[in-house]
Amino acid sequence: MRAATVITPHGTTAAVQDGTTWRALPAADLSALLAADVAWQPGARLADATPTLPLPRPGKVICCGLNYGDHIAETGRDTPSHPTLFAKYADTLTGDGQDIRLPAGVEVDWEAELAVVVGRELRNADQAQARGAIAGYTVANDISVRDWQRRTPQWFQGKAWDATTPLGPVVVTPDELDPEAGVEVICRVNGIERQRGDTKALVFPCATLLAYVSTFTTLRPGDVLLTGTPGGVGIGMTPPALLADGDVVETEVTGIGVLTNTIRLA
Amino acid sequence: MRAATVITPHGTTAAVQDGTTWRALPAADLSALLAADVAWQPGARLADATPTLPLPRPGKVICCGLNYGDHIAETGRDTPSHPTLFAKYADTLTGDGQDIRLPAGVEVDWEAELAVVVGRELRNADQAQARGAIAGYTVANDISVRDWQRRTPQWFQGKAWDATTPLGPVVVTPDELDPEAGVEVICRVNGIERQRGDTKALVFPCATLLAYVSTFTTLRPGDVLLTGTPGGVGIGMTPPALLADGDVVETEVTGIGVLTNTIRLA
Repeated sequence: MRAATVITPHGTTAAVQDGTTWRALPAADLSALLAADVAWQPGARLADATPTLPLPRPGKVICCGLNYGDHIAETGRDTPSHPTLFAKYADTLTGDGQDIRLPAGVEVDWEAELAVVVGRELRNADQAQARGAIAGYTVANDISVRDWQRRTPQWFQGKAWDATTPLGPVVVTPDELDPEAGVEVICRVNGIERQRGDTKALVFPCATLLAYVSTFTTLRPGDVLLTGTPGGVGIGMTPPALLADGDVVETEVTGIGVLTNTIRLA
Repeated sequence: MRAATVITPHGTTAAVQDGTTWRALPAADLSALLAADVAWQPGARLADATPTLPLPRPGKVICCGLNYGDHIAETGRDTPSHPTLFAKYADTLTGDGQDIRLPAGVEVDWEAELAVVVGRELRNADQAQARGAIAGYTVANDISVRDWQRRTPQWFQGKAWDATTPLGPVVVTPDELDPEAGVEVICRVNGIERQRGDTKALVFPCATLLAYVSTFTTLRPGDVLLTGTPGGVGIGMTPPALLADGDVVETEVTGIGVLTNTIRLA
């Protein structure tokens, strides 16, 4: 199934794709649907539906850095023995088609990523339990403010600007997508491809990450885990590249879809 | 005023201290009271009331590391030009009197801190706006799992174990407490004093921290900011000390109160 939170003339609703149209699911959005733990029983066909941020209220948005060999190489680090994790809040997220607004003068970079959506509560889970708790996969771009990220040893302040991490447009269930078999994670800036990685190269695959995180904190339905970015970020280029006002960032994961967001620096 | 969330025979309620007793405030806890933005009008006297975690559901718990000169020195770092920030989630918090449960074998350390509670929404705030938005101050201990903290460059996985950061027992309003004039932050382990710092020595004072964070993300009523720990943490000792099963950690900020928590490693 391909699920989303869609905007309709009557408000938002969780919805499932049915060919080229959408059918309502019984909750106002996917955060509410996953929290309610109800069957994804498609209801009425929606005449007018546009996907928006699928998960407006994850309790946790946990990110893994340094998870693709080519990106680890471009940062000059060694392959890590454990997942490098940092946190965002729900406020950091935004939807497909939204402008990403940041102040003029900051150094903005792209990081296309596969995101995992948690479907069941997990604590001290093993790999099999973690795999079974995956509700689906979606697309994210961990847009980063590099000068703020570099100000201190901790990346948080370069990673948690409000409404700067696009997520969506749809959540694809595991029966339709297998990142361990490989899906491609792609970033284009103004139509030029800058990143292309394959999730089968992840140092720490999705279920490994969820199980690891669940060692120290509870994951709940609707929580999101970003799995890291492949090589090709702007600061890895020679000379380093940054996003400019008006740049259009397309973030794609094959089999899921494309996020299109415009950078606005003012 | 000295406010808390208290457990009564009829459930929890926000409450304000009145001499040696408590009077109810019109919300189930301080998170709800601050979110509702109602006057703190004391109601009925409570015959049986015990303070618990004052803020059970902060949307954000943001921590500043490296904010006291003696602690910066014991970590071997230079005085930072910007606040070193990292994030926790509400799940990380626990209340006065609660056991802190962690698996046997991890390296557990103490970090007594003053915590600031946000009372009004802040975004792109200046210092005066940030100061005016402080609802109050409370006590925290950023109990840290050092081996996990050191596994990667990002501290999050050593700082975000569920129910390991005690917070409380009361929130003291700014008319009764002025950390810029100086309050002492103290940690005792099994009755032996290990930390004593003064908040007037903070590299980044409370209002500075709130204003800085509000540059990149919205702070809302009930959000919590931990302001860093003074010198004297276990890993700074010669030889380094760790908390053991059964150790009693007392965390005190003068003018606020004391948190007492027992470490349980199993």
